[in-house]
Amino acid sequence: MSTPAYDALTRDFQRLYNLGHLQSMASWDQAVNMPPGGNEARAAAMTEMAALLHRLRTDPALAAALERAGGESLDDTQRANLREMRRDWAEVNGLPEALVERGSMATSRCEHAWRKQRPANDWAGFLPNLKEVLSVAREEAQRLSERLGVAPYDALMDRFEPGMRSDVVSRVFGEVRTWLPGLIRDVIARQSTEEVLAPQGPFPVPAQRALCEQSMRLMQFNFEAGRLDVSTHPFSGGMPEDVRLTTRFSDHEFLTSLMGTLHETGHGRYEQNLPRHWLGQPMARARSMAIHESQSLSFEMQLGGHPGFAGLLAPLVQQAFGDQPAFSAQNLNRLITRVKPGLIRVDADEVTYPAHVILRYEIERALIEGQAEAEDIPALWDERMQELLGIDTRGNFKDGPMQDVHWPAGLFGYFPCYSLGAMYAAQWFAAIRRAHPDVDARIAQGDLGVVFDWLSQHIWSAGSRWTTDELALRASGETLNPAHFKAHLQTRYLGA
Amino acid sequence: MSTPAYDALTRDFQRLYNLGHLQSMASWDQAVNMPPGGNEARAAAMTEMAALLHRLRTDPALAAALERAGGESLDDTQRANLREMRRDWAEVNGLPEALVERGSMATSRCEHAWRKQRPANDWAGFLPNLKEVLSVAREEAQRLSERLGVAPYDALMDRFEPGMRSDVVSRVFGEVRTWLPGLIRDVIARQSTEEVLAPQGPFPVPAQRALCEQSMRLMQFNFEAGRLDVSTHPFSGGMPEDVRLTTRFSDHEFLTSLMGTLHETGHGRYEQNLPRHWLGQPMARARSMAIHESQSLSFEMQLGGHPGFAGLLAPLVQQAFGDQPAFSAQNLNRLITRVKPGLIRVDADEVTYPAHVILRYEIERALIEGQAEAEDIPALWDERMQELLGIDTRGNFKDGPMQDVHWPAGLFGYFPCYSLGAMYAAQWFAAIRRAHPDVDARIAQGDLGVVFDWLSQHIWSAGSRWTTDELALRASGETLNPAHFKAHLQTRYLGA
Repeated sequence: MSTPAYDALTRDFQRLYNLGHLQSMASWDQAVNMPPGGNEARAAAMTEMAALLHRLRTDPALAAALERAGGESLDDTQRANLREMRRDWAEVNGLPEALVERGSMATSRCEHAWRKQRPANDWAGFLPNLKEVLSVAREEAQRLSERLGVAPYDALMDRFEPGMRSDVVSRVFGEVRTWLPGLIRDVIARQSTEEVLAPQGPFPVPAQRALCEQSMRLMQFNFEAGRLDVSTHPFSGGMPEDVRLTTRFSDHEFLTSLMGTLHETGHGRYEQNLPRHWLGQPMARARSMAIHESQSLSFEMQLGGHPGFAGLLAPLVQQAFGDQPAFSAQNLNRLITRVKPGLIRVDADEVTYPAHVILRYEIERALIEGQAEAEDIPALWDERMQELLGIDTRGNFKDGPMQDVHWPAGLFGYFPCYSLGAMYAAQWFAAIRRAHPDVDARIAQGDLGVVFDWLSQHIWSAGSRWTTDELALRASGETLNPAHFKAHLQTRYLGA
Repeated sequence: MSTPAYDALTRDFQRLYNLGHLQSMASWDQAVNMPPGGNEARAAAMTEMAALLHRLRTDPALAAALERAGGESLDDTQRANLREMRRDWAEVNGLPEALVERGSMATSRCEHAWRKQRPANDWAGFLPNLKEVLSVAREEAQRLSERLGVAPYDALMDRFEPGMRSDVVSRVFGEVRTWLPGLIRDVIARQSTEEVLAPQGPFPVPAQRALCEQSMRLMQFNFEAGRLDVSTHPFSGGMPEDVRLTTRFSDHEFLTSLMGTLHETGHGRYEQNLPRHWLGQPMARARSMAIHESQSLSFEMQLGGHPGFAGLLAPLVQQAFGDQPAFSAQNLNRLITRVKPGLIRVDADEVTYPAHVILRYEIERALIEGQAEAEDIPALWDERMQELLGIDTRGNFKDGPMQDVHWPAGLFGYFPCYSLGAMYAAQWFAAIRRAHPDVDARIAQGDLGVVFDWLSQHIWSAGSRWTTDELALRASGETLNPAHFKAHLQTRYLGA
């Protein structure tokens, strides 16, 4: 059957993918290699490319082809690809260019100023910039909401987590709220009786780098198709064929970098194992940000905090820094699973992390839907930090509402993905345990293939072939079910 | 006076410059960072970008604007910029897009495979890829030849050395051929009586890297706008605002890397000091490859082999590796200026280097003009190596015709620039000596500013403001005069 419109679309999207490759590598380079003097020319080059990609993605010929392709005789995979092409189109074309430009100006100004205002704890200076970013985000939300027929906040969240709705998020997070503070108290009480030895530094950076690379090999990261480098803010970048992970090192502490590397390796292996044959097409993209986080958290939390896995890490750590009592498998596992309420989300442990996300979700949803203003954030923040983690943050803006780049960057609707990802990860491991009741023993024996094969078969190789709900259903027999996350925490942290 | 067509052209060329930035960085990344698995996707991305730039550079609107701008009231600088825009246009518009894409694919494949085939001495594996590259190059030469009204080889050379013709090159190289073998013999005889101490290794790579960076600082390279990294084949890449130099290290020898770094630093400083205000416009580009080489060779040979300069290097070398008798200034200078016919061009000394270039020039001209085929290269190579340097290279492809990246990369017509550059460098230093008769003493005192200021004023800051002949005339009072090169070699190597 001839499908000329669909075929033309696949060529257009392949072209976007090819150009995106250069954008992606330049962006990685900017964070990893670029000397300061290169910044202006790089910014001009990136702006040029962004404008070019925007023009290509808003070409009316693309809309016409999407329309025509709908009437062509497509098989199921092609139809899935067309669905993802339409999503791409809707995402870019839902907003008038003037609003996109205003948003770009506002976030650019706010994020740039924030980098100095945060260390200075300068909430008053930050506020007017944030108000402008919020004002744009609200208008975007309103317009996308009308277009998609969903609530304004949901319309923003849809960009990161397609199909997810805030009534689901609110129900799930509301349920977590009922047991989380109690669980945290119980875990802290239980851990207070454990002896934990602090590793003795220094931990030389070359040895840390070797340890991280060894751990990536343990996780079967493909170094023929990727690298590990250093950047101020660790991230997973590059392209599926050439994944660029970054970490950062400090020579008095090694676990942050090691666990961060495991986290990015989860993102990286997902990208490396997306459906190869379809790469370049929207259908081959990672399904969503929550599913992406479910992979990084499968690596960092489900595996990284697994008592059997600590037995695999211990010899690598000993090889890197020499032997010391703190490097026993049991002690490493205790260090990795230590629970302690704190101010900073990115430093939070597996148990308190959801509190940070729930707080942000509640606040940003109220902001977008107009029940709160930017001025109200500090009070809302304090109230919830008290409620959820028993921490007083009054006056500490830099480690409070100014700690994340997301709001200055206009990324409202992203935060829920972190905890949804943790929930999906627990759901995947529950499914793996049903399929392979001996999986915990096999992990302890270093046979991680059983986990990776399952993830590859059910998640990685699916790309965006299915919607998130379909993906979860096919992989685990059910759509998002947060009970697995609760059970995981109870088992791991309370032995229940 | 209003100049709408010219103004539109400056915007178009700025846009090309911005997109070229991404291409340039991706190309640097390919040589420095990219894991092998990334090659196919990178090749596709580079091909896409090459095609896009080709489309932009062949847009008929550009031709129309060039035509209209010619009738506008432009000042001298604008007119020079327009001349360079026209050169750009003429260079690109001789070639159909399909041929450009075929070329990009062919060179990408050939160069990538060559990186493994060269160490394996795999001429048979290399040959079919090279034949395809050559076939594209011949077609390019034919088309450009018709358009420019010059011989096919000259049409290719014109891309690197605008205005240069093979009758000039053949005459100049033919003259060198008459005295070079004799000079080499005399120098070897003279040097055979000198005592030269061999440095005792190993030379740890981190210390070598530090030494190279120190030497770059001595040469006033701006690290706020550039970097030094490692690649198989050292090069100078990136952009004027962000210059990416590379070198390679081997821990049993340090001079190759050090002198190579001085060489690339010459390229790098030229780029870093192109006319800043005009960056983005064709007039701000480096004048030509021979002029570029005249800068790298001013740094590596004119300065690097200068007896006074050895006194500046000696303490840096001692600082890097500890003291030893071989690190005296006199001994370092003898090591650096040691003449010994060898297989490898990039390892060749200043005296035998032209032989390597003449050989390549003769072979590649015959290849492009159809008097030789790729299969004939090894025999032609052997014959000339015997003739010019008395060396047998039979069966040794990796250190013979497979040693350079130029042919796999399709850069036919480039080689003459190396020796033309050496000749221009000698011409510049003769001019500097006329303007500053104390320059040799000042170099020995570490006052390199006198050299850099002259180069900056006469070469770097001129960009492409003048044609090469005009540039040479303004800088040194004469167009290319190879007598300075011969005199330089005789003075330095025979004390004549």
